Amino acid sequence: MRHRLIIVTLAALVMLSAAPSFADEGMWLLGQIPDLEPALKVMGMQLSPKEIWDPATNTGLASATPWLGGCSSSFVSPDGLIITNHHCAFGAIQMNSTPEHDYITEGFLAANRVEELPYRAGRVTVLKGYEDITQAVTSTLKPGMEPEARARAIDLREKQLVAACEKDGLRCRVGEMFGGGAYYLLRQLEIRDVRLVYAPPRSIGEYGGEVDNWVWPRHTGDYSFLRAYVGPDGKPADYSTNNVPFKPDRWLTIAKEPMNDGDFAFILGYPGKTMRYRIAAAVADDTAFYYPERIKLLTQLSAILEEESKRGKAVEIKLASQLKGFYNSVKNNTGMLEGLTRSDLAGRKRAEEARLTSWIDADPARRARFGRVLPAMERAQAQKNATRQRDLLLSWMPIPRSSSLLAAASIIERWSYERTKPDLERKADYQARDERTLRQRLFNMQRNLDLPSERRVLAYLFDRAAKLPAGQRITALDDALAATGKTGDEAIGALLDKLYAGTKLADEKTRLAWFDMDYKALMAAGDTMLHFAAALRADKAAEEQVTQRYEGEMVTLAPRHIEALAAWKNVPLYPDANSTLRLTYGSVKGYSPRDGVYYKPFTTHHGVVEKETGQEPFASPQRLLAAERSGADGTYGSQQLGDVPACFLTDNDITGGNSGSPVMNGKGELVGLAFDGNYEAIDSDFQFNPALSRTIAVDIRYVLWCMDYVDKAHVLMREIGVEPQNK
Amino acid sequence: MRHRLIIVTLAALVMLSAAPSFADEGMWLLGQIPDLEPALKVMGMQLSPKEIWDPATNTGLASATPWLGGCSSSFVSPDGLIITNHHCAFGAIQMNSTPEHDYITEGFLAANRVEELPYRAGRVTVLKGYEDITQAVTSTLKPGMEPEARARAIDLREKQLVAACEKDGLRCRVGEMFGGGAYYLLRQLEIRDVRLVYAPPRSIGEYGGEVDNWVWPRHTGDYSFLRAYVGPDGKPADYSTNNVPFKPDRWLTIAKEPMNDGDFAFILGYPGKTMRYRIAAAVADDTAFYYPERIKLLTQLSAILEEESKRGKAVEIKLASQLKGFYNSVKNNTGMLEGLTRSDLAGRKRAEEARLTSWIDADPARRARFGRVLPAMERAQAQKNATRQRDLLLSWMPIPRSSSLLAAASIIERWSYERTKPDLERKADYQARDERTLRQRLFNMQRNLDLPSERRVLAYLFDRAAKLPAGQRITALDDALAATGKTGDEAIGALLDKLYAGTKLADEKTRLAWFDMDYKALMAAGDTMLHFAAALRADKAAEEQVTQRYEGEMVTLAPRHIEALAAWKNVPLYPDANSTLRLTYGSVKGYSPRDGVYYKPFTTHHGVVEKETGQEPFASPQRLLAAERSGADGTYGSQQLGDVPACFLTDNDITGGNSGSPVMNGKGELVGLAFDGNYEAIDSDFQFNPALSRTIAVDIRYVLWCMDYVDKAHVLMREIGVEPQNK
Repeated sequence: MRHRLIIVTLAALVMLSAAPSFADEGMWLLGQIPDLEPALKVMGMQLSPKEIWDPATNTGLASATPWLGGCSSSFVSPDGLIITNHHCAFGAIQMNSTPEHDYITEGFLAANRVEELPYRAGRVTVLKGYEDITQAVTSTLKPGMEPEARARAIDLREKQLVAACEKDGLRCRVGEMFGGGAYYLLRQLEIRDVRLVYAPPRSIGEYGGEVDNWVWPRHTGDYSFLRAYVGPDGKPADYSTNNVPFKPDRWLTIAKEPMNDGDFAFILGYPGKTMRYRIAAAVADDTAFYYPERIKLLTQLSAILEEESKRGKAVEIKLASQLKGFYNSVKNNTGMLEGLTRSDLAGRKRAEEARLTSWIDADPARRARFGRVLPAMERAQAQKNATRQRDLLLSWMPIPRSSSLLAAASIIERWSYERTKPDLERKADYQARDERTLRQRLFNMQRNLDLPSERRVLAYLFDRAAKLPAGQRITALDDALAATGKTGDEAIGALLDKLYAGTKLADEKTRLAWFDMDYKALMAAGDTMLHFAAALRADKAAEEQVTQRYEGEMVTLAPRHIEALAAWKNVPLYPDANSTLRLTYGSVKGYSPRDGVYYKPFTTHHGVVEKETGQEPFASPQRLLAAERSGADGTYGSQQLGDVPACFLTDNDITGGNSGSPVMNGKGELVGLAFDGNYEAIDSDFQFNPALSRTIAVDIRYVLWCMDYVDKAHVLMREIGVEPQNK
Repeated sequence: MRHRLIIVTLAALVMLSAAPSFADEGMWLLGQIPDLEPALKVMGMQLSPKEIWDPATNTGLASATPWLGGCSSSFVSPDGLIITNHHCAFGAIQMNSTPEHDYITEGFLAANRVEELPYRAGRVTVLKGYEDITQAVTSTLKPGMEPEARARAIDLREKQLVAACEKDGLRCRVGEMFGGGAYYLLRQLEIRDVRLVYAPPRSIGEYGGEVDNWVWPRHTGDYSFLRAYVGPDGKPADYSTNNVPFKPDRWLTIAKEPMNDGDFAFILGYPGKTMRYRIAAAVADDTAFYYPERIKLLTQLSAILEEESKRGKAVEIKLASQLKGFYNSVKNNTGMLEGLTRSDLAGRKRAEEARLTSWIDADPARRARFGRVLPAMERAQAQKNATRQRDLLLSWMPIPRSSSLLAAASIIERWSYERTKPDLERKADYQARDERTLRQRLFNMQRNLDLPSERRVLAYLFDRAAKLPAGQRITALDDALAATGKTGDEAIGALLDKLYAGTKLADEKTRLAWFDMDYKALMAAGDTMLHFAAALRADKAAEEQVTQRYEGEMVTLAPRHIEALAAWKNVPLYPDANSTLRLTYGSVKGYSPRDGVYYKPFTTHHGVVEKETGQEPFASPQRLLAAERSGADGTYGSQQLGDVPACFLTDNDITGGNSGSPVMNGKGELVGLAFDGNYEAIDSDFQFNPALSRTIAVDIRYVLWCMDYVDKAHVLMREIGVEPQNK
């Protein structure tokens, strides 16, 4: 009951119009846009909030910006054509590449719609509407509930609401806002016939590669085109040659005018995760434990995969994507840790919390309402920290990010096990609605399976796990090692020998067949890896209980904490990112990364050639270099620059998941695609810094120039309403 | 005869007023300043040419900017107080440092004049006048002379003129301009009692160290103070406690106003060497051979010294200065090579020469006058290249840059040998006037002698020399190796054993005693190293002959080539740098090092702390950090920056040798000290690039802030006319 109050208070706070000091910070919910209107207008927004999203009709610009699952995108033609980042379409490019048709290196351009290539793992999720279900969710909570019970009750109610929502081909999900202060039910159309239309060569789409990753100045043509297809009835359908292009309600038009320094820009996209309201104790854990440990782990695993890559070209290709992910994470996490350390965020939050506490303590009503919150959150954090070493290793044990037999075993075993329960009682992600996705994962992993390297990774993780302190042991592993009758490295070697000798999971057909098997039959198959996965599940359950308890605690505390912060600071608040659609606004703006240096907000076309070395990752296609030398800029140049803009900076507030997001001018026209953040503000997930936090976008004019002069994608240009120059 | 004509033509060309396209480029002779007057006035110069130098009275601002031999400086008080770079005063600081008094680390501030520390190797050279001796020099040349004879004749005439000039304690030298197109005789006062007055801690004076060397943005407090002393009679004298401060004719006052972006600035200093008129063939040799070979050599020698440094702290200290020099050279030479390669200077010069040749060929008179010049220069270059591998190694064999027994042997043997000739016939640098300098070198080297490391360096050079191709052999080494009766590494080892076992040159007293011995007696001493040096002299003579022939050729060709260039381009010319006093003018200006980046022209005080890591080379003294934290900026802040400026950029045209040069505002007041160039334009020695070539200076306001708030050098501040704030 008290819970509802919080919501009301929060809702009221959210309704405050944006304070100038908060300008440009914030990943705002669609429902908050009306409150931002005055600020947006002053900055240059020409669209009304209803043009962006009208909850009465469930239409607006936001229906033109679908989610790609981990990435954002936009429709750019009435025929379901989608523009997103090259790195977001990379899976589609990779899946379709063969040694004979190396689309990764050469790029791909479908001459016509028939030639567009299927991307079976692709999903295009279009917003159809949302509703506030806070009341429905929180009404299941009873006073005096244990935290675990609270978490379970919320989980069950969410599943019920999702199940009720998912009809007529709709896919629904719950967005938890403000740490449990509000809940939204999102109705989405999930299109599953996605095709690759056009990707530039990797040397454009990934120009600068790992060297330039997170770096400004940037010169990456990080764009690609996909197309959404549906059944002849207009409803989502599996891939079929009978399918027809999806007809979106809305699509973006391409801006005719170039952007200039200071111009207003807004972004619609799906930021994945931020931690802006995290308490000092949690930040301290991130700084002292989580990031250092992750960096260590990732660095070790990278070293193993690098070594294994030397076994040959085939292995190198299999491990490339995973290694790339590891590098990206190491760079991200290292920057994050540097940022947290340099800015002493934990210390500053601790000081802020001390001031907040004084403010709370100064008033009996406040003390009554907020007094117990921070201490309780700190206790919850401490409790969670008690098993943090085990929990980190457990989360890596089935190497979820990689193709591996233990990951396959974990999925199959868990799926089979969960199916013994009623659907609503199953673990999230293991309900009937998840079957397709799980099956797809088991299918996809074949391509990159490499047993020698995954065995070495497991050996490393087992070795780390064997050294865990008492109270954080992984019982399944302890037992399995003991059963070998050996100790130390010999035990690990013997266990791995046994696991790999006794498993058939490397075989794709077996994996897919076993996925459908009932639990008893599955266990009777006697597969060593499956049995180990089953044993590990008990340890996982202990870890899940820790999480459930923590979440059950936090779900009442975090909203109250945010409420206190909002009341104390008297500013409007936006919820942390959670892969739901958000609007962020700002303007084109450079920054000073350090004393004496100013980073201009635009790079140029000429700068692409300036970086050229002829060596990866700075080896542009010859046809790009020739086109640049010819001086043919078409109408893509900007007068302010005297050159074609390549990439640009804005102070919009984005994070991972926003990749591929359309950057739009005040008219809502497409001016660029967000694809990265800058290294100096990599810790923006924790704290937005107006002086440093920047969005890096590829300019649509560079995209058009490449389409026109480098790849001659003229048919496609006409589809998006731009007349080619290079005829 | 024809030679004289060239001079006249060149003189006429030099007299043209500065063309705007050449603005800011140029290291101009004092005699050229009147011709620059219009351009200087427009830019902001408030002094008349005569105030800078009046040839009628031999006085002016230029008498306030003495040469330190490899560095520049300025007088800043009527009592001979000199300000220069910390790295220019480093020898004085190092010589006076002991483990008990570590002035390198701690800095040094003399409480009063009695405490000022002697710097016996120091020389302060003050300009007293100059005259054009072109006629006197070139009149010795006869038509049809062989190149070697030409070179010898010029050498002899120069020595005669210098000998006639050196009286009343004056020190004279000849400055060859335009590759032999003009000659000037410089009359200078050489003061040899130089004392260290004040040096900040290395952590200020060398802040950023090797990491920031050649780099912008920069935060180095690269300043120190010396004082010139003379005998009670006002004439130069050896160090004595009876000496008195030198009273300069002129000294600089400290600017009261801060510099701002775009402000006019000029510099008086002694640039060492530029190669702006070098032909394509010579640049090609630099690019393909000279710099790559030097980088390889320096890198190998650095590796050897680094390894040897690990033998212990004492060895590390001995080798530190040489290693620092090697690192600086490697960075410089690498940047130079990158610049030459990236800009394809050789290719562009070749294209330019083709156009020049077309212009020459288009007119019979021009063909007659210039037609043979370029081909002849190319032949001379090719001839010189024939023994370039040998010549490079020979120049390193006595390791002139290091303390070494072979260097000592070479000096003693050569000195003794040259003394068997009349003074005017001796090799330059081995005349009676050079005795003091040579003796000082033999004395100075004791401090850093380290036999194991110099032996390893020699072993490396011997090994390289043993692999020289036929026609470029070093006979002395071949003979000495053959005499060991061994081959390969064994022969080198045996030779080194013999050389080091049979020499007494490691003993300072023996070195200095032998320096005075006559040649016969010296050879009779039977010192192995001396005998090897004597044998090497024959090889050196072959190399000297190559050089003499080349110079004899070039002395008639280079001026004609420059004349052709000047006539073709119709622009005024300045001679290449040659350690004579030059004026360069420009303004405070940032630059764009690459697409998307702008380097601001000022760094700040705050930026010093931003770079702070607590680890060398970014470990500021605690008292600096405390002063910065206190926010005490005195009156040293600049309104434009809102902070104390630390370093700044101008587009003045400088090079090595300009270190320590005063940077002055339009009134001729001191606003900073030049101390470095920027990496992006490190090849400025070959080509000035207005967009990139920059001077890096420490702002006098940072110097004053450090004096006032960090080191409390208040007495000194009052001497230079600035009232301290931090009282």
